[in-house]
Amino acid sequence: MSLLVGQSASITKVFGRDEVSAFADLSEDRNPVHLDANFAAQTPFKQPIVHGMLLSSLLSALLGQHLPGEGTIYLGQTLKFVRPVYVGDAVTATVTVSDIRDDKPVVTLTTEVFDKHGKPCVQGEAVVRV
Amino acid sequence: MSLLVGQSASITKVFGRDEVSAFADLSEDRNPVHLDANFAAQTPFKQPIVHGMLLSSLLSALLGQHLPGEGTIYLGQTLKFVRPVYVGDAVTATVTVSDIRDDKPVVTLTTEVFDKHGKPCVQGEAVVRV
Repeated sequence: MSLLVGQSASITKVFGRDEVSAFADLSEDRNPVHLDANFAAQTPFKQPIVHGMLLSSLLSALLGQHLPGEGTIYLGQTLKFVRPVYVGDAVTATVTVSDIRDDKPVVTLTTEVFDKHGKPCVQGEAVVRV
Repeated sequence: MSLLVGQSASITKVFGRDEVSAFADLSEDRNPVHLDANFAAQTPFKQPIVHGMLLSSLLSALLGQHLPGEGTIYLGQTLKFVRPVYVGDAVTATVTVSDIRDDKPVVTLTTEVFDKHGKPCVQGEAVVRV
């Protein structure tokens, strides 16, 4: 597959209470802001939010399976958590090729996760070997 | 709690086949390098490796529950995946306070995940609001 700057791939998913609870167990991240509506109501978020790393895992899913796809080796990722995503809301993750190195098989992609209103929640950049 | 530069917190965990499989379902990241020993044998890794984002989720667990702890708001994270972790191997994640802003309640921490030999596998930096 020949990659081009500007190519992109997206995936949409809902992380509900069951998914967030399962991720809390896997990651040991049982921060009550993700799990406990009464606790979350006392925070600036007001309601339970999805773990940033669970949102970001959709980026890895895209990179390894869609763009660039199979055989991709993940070298690095930057993440800015700019807006919360509430448990049960749909999100869309998108990766877009932004740079292709001439000298070695290394590709940079802009990576974003948007909420159901299309507002950015996670922003950053991935670097992969293809 | 008053934070000091140099303070650190760690957590050790084994991600086995069941955990990696559960994370693959949650994240939609079913890259066979994580799940299929026959496939992994044909890659530079030779055996199934843990998802980088699953390793990194331990960092979030430390930040939100241990250091700085409850109430921490995750602003950003950089990740470099410098060495694979094999499924079933113990890893240790560590966060260490590296900078405390004077002008606003923002703290930077060095974040690392080490393999069972103590070699770094994930390296980066977290920025949080406390």
